[in-house]
Amino acid sequence: MTVTVPLSTRLREVRGSAIRDLLALTAREDVISLAGGLPATDLLPHERIATATSAALRDPNSVQYGETAGLRGLREVVAALEAERVGRPVAADDVLVTSGSQQALDLLARAVLDPGDAVVVEDPVYVGALQVFQAAGAAVHGIPMDTDGMDVDALAARLAAGLRPRLVHTVSTFQNPRGATLAPARRAQLAALAGRYGFLVVEDDPYGLIGFAGPPPPPVAAHGDRVVRLGSASKVLAPALRVGWLVGPGDLRAGVERLKQCTDLCASTLTQTVAADLFADTAWFDAHLHRLRTALRDRAAAVTAAVREAFGDAVDCSEPEGGMFCWLEFTDGTRTGELLPRALRHGVGFVPGAAFAVGRPLDTAARLSFATNPEAALREGVHRLAAAWCEAPVAAS
Amino acid sequence: MTVTVPLSTRLREVRGSAIRDLLALTAREDVISLAGGLPATDLLPHERIATATSAALRDPNSVQYGETAGLRGLREVVAALEAERVGRPVAADDVLVTSGSQQALDLLARAVLDPGDAVVVEDPVYVGALQVFQAAGAAVHGIPMDTDGMDVDALAARLAAGLRPRLVHTVSTFQNPRGATLAPARRAQLAALAGRYGFLVVEDDPYGLIGFAGPPPPPVAAHGDRVVRLGSASKVLAPALRVGWLVGPGDLRAGVERLKQCTDLCASTLTQTVAADLFADTAWFDAHLHRLRTALRDRAAAVTAAVREAFGDAVDCSEPEGGMFCWLEFTDGTRTGELLPRALRHGVGFVPGAAFAVGRPLDTAARLSFATNPEAALREGVHRLAAAWCEAPVAAS
Repeated sequence: MTVTVPLSTRLREVRGSAIRDLLALTAREDVISLAGGLPATDLLPHERIATATSAALRDPNSVQYGETAGLRGLREVVAALEAERVGRPVAADDVLVTSGSQQALDLLARAVLDPGDAVVVEDPVYVGALQVFQAAGAAVHGIPMDTDGMDVDALAARLAAGLRPRLVHTVSTFQNPRGATLAPARRAQLAALAGRYGFLVVEDDPYGLIGFAGPPPPPVAAHGDRVVRLGSASKVLAPALRVGWLVGPGDLRAGVERLKQCTDLCASTLTQTVAADLFADTAWFDAHLHRLRTALRDRAAAVTAAVREAFGDAVDCSEPEGGMFCWLEFTDGTRTGELLPRALRHGVGFVPGAAFAVGRPLDTAARLSFATNPEAALREGVHRLAAAWCEAPVAAS
Repeated sequence: MTVTVPLSTRLREVRGSAIRDLLALTAREDVISLAGGLPATDLLPHERIATATSAALRDPNSVQYGETAGLRGLREVVAALEAERVGRPVAADDVLVTSGSQQALDLLARAVLDPGDAVVVEDPVYVGALQVFQAAGAAVHGIPMDTDGMDVDALAARLAAGLRPRLVHTVSTFQNPRGATLAPARRAQLAALAGRYGFLVVEDDPYGLIGFAGPPPPPVAAHGDRVVRLGSASKVLAPALRVGWLVGPGDLRAGVERLKQCTDLCASTLTQTVAADLFADTAWFDAHLHRLRTALRDRAAAVTAAVREAFGDAVDCSEPEGGMFCWLEFTDGTRTGELLPRALRHGVGFVPGAAFAVGRPLDTAARLSFATNPEAALREGVHRLAAAWCEAPVAAS
């Protein structure tokens, strides 16, 4: 059709995802993609899901509409998972089920933000969060991260200087893309700042259950009540369940629920029933998490060892303790945006740091995903990356 | 938690759904609900869905993330269904898959509307559409309906007088709540007005495949290209698939797709695979539609016959030709908002017309759903309604 329809002002403000455009390139058969954020297909429990689905489908109500807030049974098991993470009771009524945690973030932003409201994000940022806040018309401010997560002192300084955000977004544990985990003292400090300055912390926690060496530090929500927690079944069960959740203050939750009702009525009763079954089967779930953590730990080790071997001092590589990503900083001035086309010619994809940048260039950084591929492919991917880098070892500085 | 979070200006403008509050009341075991818009659970093909799901789950990719625009195979079968409805070729690329057609509507509104933009809806309105347009900050104008659907002459007069909507929303076939179908001449006239005044028609068509007496008239989209069509698997397959779609101009579709990506990334690969399987199995799907249409036709007949018998001339009752709803107008001045509490005491629920009103009171109207219950329960429900009405036959005028 040739009809031209002008788009809304808001939509024009949403940055196109460079990652997404990149994924099209890395979908080529001959490219090993270290770019995408997909969990490993070979680790997805499709057989256990088949058993649960077939049990659920004996009841015709499993394919009917459900309540907007989510299936009671799922809200109960999620509340139990959350209670264990946060270290205090969480009621099923405190949980709102969403279509992945991405929808929780989008609904939350729309429920709370007016155009022009200030929002703080991590720099480098989870791009999905940046897009949501842009779509909500927010004024987005980035706070730099280091290996201990967001620099909360830097945030405190901005607040002292007058910044008044409505929301502060953090992927507090095994962050995407930086891989870093917010240090315990910074968690307490962030919760205290939320109380002092009246903002809400959005603690986005899709990776908290996939730590390689025991559970991560207690979440920000353990340190104060001005925290909304977002969680997801996508990284621990399967993305196609489209099950995420939001846990937060009651009046906010009611507002988000109202918005969810006019957004898409409800989540799938069927996939919620399946998710509830799998989470509630604690013997299976614990064993599954163990398999997942072990496999991801070995994959992370394969990538970081290969990077050290191939690049030596020319790259600072993060040491992942969980999650799906490691973060490279080239110390030799290699500009990763220029490295990428050469890397693709060598048959490997990654995401240049600039794709995650908010207020600083990150031109010499790169995100590598270690989740999607088995170890041999990861090693080969890093070798190809090194070959591309060797073509022109120092591009600029 | 006791933290108070102020909600966004936009969310405060969204009318709470009276229907939703009502559904809580009608969920009581002893109440026959003629209120809700649920398809009949006993007619949902859960066994066919089980077969398709189990086949899909042999492939671990069925539980992985998928493309934002939707699963290729599903887009192809939806394009074929749409082509048959519209009477011209529709390409798979023209189709965007959404989480039910409600999400298509929400994304479309967010992609196109700026706050203050004018939008035209039918009066009585599909409440889910009203809420979406309120959430988008639109100025909503209602155009009265009669038994031939929206009064397009009245719309033409408003346009001639200066109204300049960005969107005109119509449930053109077997409308919710009015049950009416837009007459063929009005369809052509609406498409012509869209061309002349530059607005976009949103043709919301979840019921078009469940006509009782053959296919409904060619859609508005058959008459012009300034039409976005929304469709859904919820009423013809099952709500828990959460599969809907949007078919429309390419630049608009690309904008909606970008917004969908930051809203919830993608629909479920699993339920999309299942929907594609069922739609593609044309022998099964045709037989299923036949069963569904026959059952719904018989249920509609049961309700309308019982209403005529119980209320005689005191009620004008619509003659449903498809869909899920019939519309009552009390000619004796009975105010349905006052009838409702008495009806609930007699063990029957319905939705008073006022819940669907935009610019006129509709105080003596009521929507009855004939889809959810079998015939005997429908008859008993109408008898209870008549008993409640007999308590105070003429309340006011």
